[in-house]
Amino acid sequence: MPTTESLALLTDLYQLTMAQSYFQSQKLGPATFSLFIRSYPSNRGYFVAAGLQDVLEFLEQFKVDAAGIDYLRSRRMFTDDFLDFLRGLKFTGEIWAIPEGRFFFKDEPVMEVTAPIVEAQIVETFIINQINFQSLIATKAARCVHAAGSRSVVDFSLRRTHGIDAGMKVARSSYLAGFAGTSNVRAGQRYGIPLVGTMAHSFVSSFEREIEAFRAFVRSFPNHSTLLIDTYDTLAGARKALKVAKEMAAQGLHLQGVRIDSGDLAQLAGAVRKIFDEAGLNYVKLVGSGGLDEYDLAEFSDADIPYDSYGVGTKMGVSADTPWSDIAYKLVEYDNRPIVKLSPGKISLPGKKQVFRICDPQGRRLQKDVITLRDETVADAEALLKKVMSEGKVIEPLPSLEESRSFFSSEFARLPEAIKAIRNPTYYRVEHSAKLQNLCAAVGKRIRRSQNS
Amino acid sequence: MPTTESLALLTDLYQLTMAQSYFQSQKLGPATFSLFIRSYPSNRGYFVAAGLQDVLEFLEQFKVDAAGIDYLRSRRMFTDDFLDFLRGLKFTGEIWAIPEGRFFFKDEPVMEVTAPIVEAQIVETFIINQINFQSLIATKAARCVHAAGSRSVVDFSLRRTHGIDAGMKVARSSYLAGFAGTSNVRAGQRYGIPLVGTMAHSFVSSFEREIEAFRAFVRSFPNHSTLLIDTYDTLAGARKALKVAKEMAAQGLHLQGVRIDSGDLAQLAGAVRKIFDEAGLNYVKLVGSGGLDEYDLAEFSDADIPYDSYGVGTKMGVSADTPWSDIAYKLVEYDNRPIVKLSPGKISLPGKKQVFRICDPQGRRLQKDVITLRDETVADAEALLKKVMSEGKVIEPLPSLEESRSFFSSEFARLPEAIKAIRNPTYYRVEHSAKLQNLCAAVGKRIRRSQNS
Repeated sequence: MPTTESLALLTDLYQLTMAQSYFQSQKLGPATFSLFIRSYPSNRGYFVAAGLQDVLEFLEQFKVDAAGIDYLRSRRMFTDDFLDFLRGLKFTGEIWAIPEGRFFFKDEPVMEVTAPIVEAQIVETFIINQINFQSLIATKAARCVHAAGSRSVVDFSLRRTHGIDAGMKVARSSYLAGFAGTSNVRAGQRYGIPLVGTMAHSFVSSFEREIEAFRAFVRSFPNHSTLLIDTYDTLAGARKALKVAKEMAAQGLHLQGVRIDSGDLAQLAGAVRKIFDEAGLNYVKLVGSGGLDEYDLAEFSDADIPYDSYGVGTKMGVSADTPWSDIAYKLVEYDNRPIVKLSPGKISLPGKKQVFRICDPQGRRLQKDVITLRDETVADAEALLKKVMSEGKVIEPLPSLEESRSFFSSEFARLPEAIKAIRNPTYYRVEHSAKLQNLCAAVGKRIRRSQNS
Repeated sequence: MPTTESLALLTDLYQLTMAQSYFQSQKLGPATFSLFIRSYPSNRGYFVAAGLQDVLEFLEQFKVDAAGIDYLRSRRMFTDDFLDFLRGLKFTGEIWAIPEGRFFFKDEPVMEVTAPIVEAQIVETFIINQINFQSLIATKAARCVHAAGSRSVVDFSLRRTHGIDAGMKVARSSYLAGFAGTSNVRAGQRYGIPLVGTMAHSFVSSFEREIEAFRAFVRSFPNHSTLLIDTYDTLAGARKALKVAKEMAAQGLHLQGVRIDSGDLAQLAGAVRKIFDEAGLNYVKLVGSGGLDEYDLAEFSDADIPYDSYGVGTKMGVSADTPWSDIAYKLVEYDNRPIVKLSPGKISLPGKKQVFRICDPQGRRLQKDVITLRDETVADAEALLKKVMSEGKVIEPLPSLEESRSFFSSEFARLPEAIKAIRNPTYYRVEHSAKLQNLCAAVGKRIRRSQNS
């Protein structure tokens, strides 16, 4: 529900209990946390960064409001002096991040946060919540766009996304990754995304006869009507739509398209295309929808199924084959002391870092990334982590959604096909600099020693 | 981000284009839509209803604000008279719904909406968005609670849920279905859910030595500290926690528990339990977490792994094995004319309906449900669909979250074990009344005839 309530308490309880313990232990030194994905889900060879805009807005506005403080006091877990401290707390840290719409790979920090440890800790939950989800969706959407080839893809997922915020962010993240538009009106309004839509089965069935529904709709939208033809029988529906299209043609109007939403979508497309083509109405576009994902779209592209565009909903909007990622936000430095985590299978890279991207000399093809310490440089390579926030303030406005979207599209073209494969992709080459490797070994040794002492 | 913006435009574009066409065709008669799930996802034999509260709030507040009207006007798709109509539109309809926390089964309407067709259509997207997601999570959570047996389960999912709204609704839906608490502070504040939390690896690694981290934390929270012992080596961590527990005991304090979050959770639990038991500290509780779902919990219960409670995160919070349901909102009556949809595999049940639940004579065990027309009665059965909204207003306050939660728990005990099975459940018996079957056949015949005419 709409609210002006502060989001600062959208965090895990332990962030606040740890904060009180840091506060009471006078551990107020600067900490750096790295946000990265530890492993590739199956059939994923890259990730598309998304969610930074929301994270920066959250951090700039971070403040626990009076109602929040009262609530925490009522829990009887927190001391008055800590609650006073919390009431005055703002986020004063520095953020380095890979911009939205850029690729990132396993183990690469998509964001690094440096701030007094209490601040960096309390905001962890929100940062992960937004970057994980939006990157997951941007990645899934990029796969759909890639699989669709020359056909355009639009977002129909709002009803099946996980709540309100998800519906909005799916529209935005999928547009970032190359979707052509969304059915989500509020997302169109908020983000300036083109709106798309056809009609529903209920519209058709509210009329006694299907053709009456078609006629009523094209009367209302003579220039952009896409008629849904599968409510009763798809081929019969196509013939009725053809009849309406001819009635329109007699008035100098063109039926924009028809949509098929059930049945054997591949087989029906050919049959419906034929009905319109044989009547000379090859301008009528075919829209396919109904449970589609990138695996279907890749098959349709391979078989040259004659859809002009696809409405992709549920499976993109929840990233159905991989609805979560193994993302982690790990402490990598405290009070200038680099740190690694040594839990089995959960190794992290110590220290403040940078990621460099190297193209072939012609700039046509991404070759490899190198993860380094923050102060290293790599010749002829682009540093991906940009400093976007300093002392809790955004340094300069982020690129617009349109700018990020077109950057994504141009970089996507330069990512090798094998990495973009829908199934069993090859993994992109990511190296660790010698300095990083040395630090990693040294820190591991130091930590093992001090734990055993 | 926090907003007071109206949610009315959180809908699909086609709802608005259809609305304009209804408006222009003067189709303003009453429509009834049924919301139901068409099929069971694998390993699901029941659904838990959730999300009604949010839907009713949305409907009571429904209003397209001035900014929304301006935005729509700028699309150049809508006529001025339709936009004037839209500006004044409120939801004036009637809602029948199965209360939150009650079971429902395949094909049973969990909600029926009767309103002028434009109103009932525009609110479709939001209704599905909330009921689908919240019911999905409540169902997944119920499975976790069932699998955990006598152990309690708490929600740790916020960071991996799909955005802000999802994080809040997961906390609420999982609590409804028997979770004992949540780590989500804002959900605790908003919904009155008990808060739970331990500590993170970053807390431990911010100290030079693990035991110092433990000591600092128990100094801050002498009465509720659960120490995370797997940052470096779980058994070594357990021995350090034991040392701290003994230091506490010397002061008359009890260490509440320890948490294991990685490695072989089943094997480690036994070894850690032994360390504390052999020292006579059997009061120290064991919390297990780290990628757990109901399949793991069922195995742990079967093997009597000595955890006292579980933190369940990601896989519950995104319903990982089934992140969407085949939910539909279908027009079943327009202007007193019953309607069915005949698309292959997408049959709907015509007319306004009711669902009756029948127990054995002792009231101990659910036996079957019967879907009927709204005005039928079934002897010795409970009518599940309650009239909760009339003329756009909630009739009486819904049960509180606590009331719904305890109702859920008592009804869950009466649902046969085979239906609650974590894998390959038996399907619950759901019958259709003779009157409903007759109407279905008659309407199907009528519609086929009129489409062929």
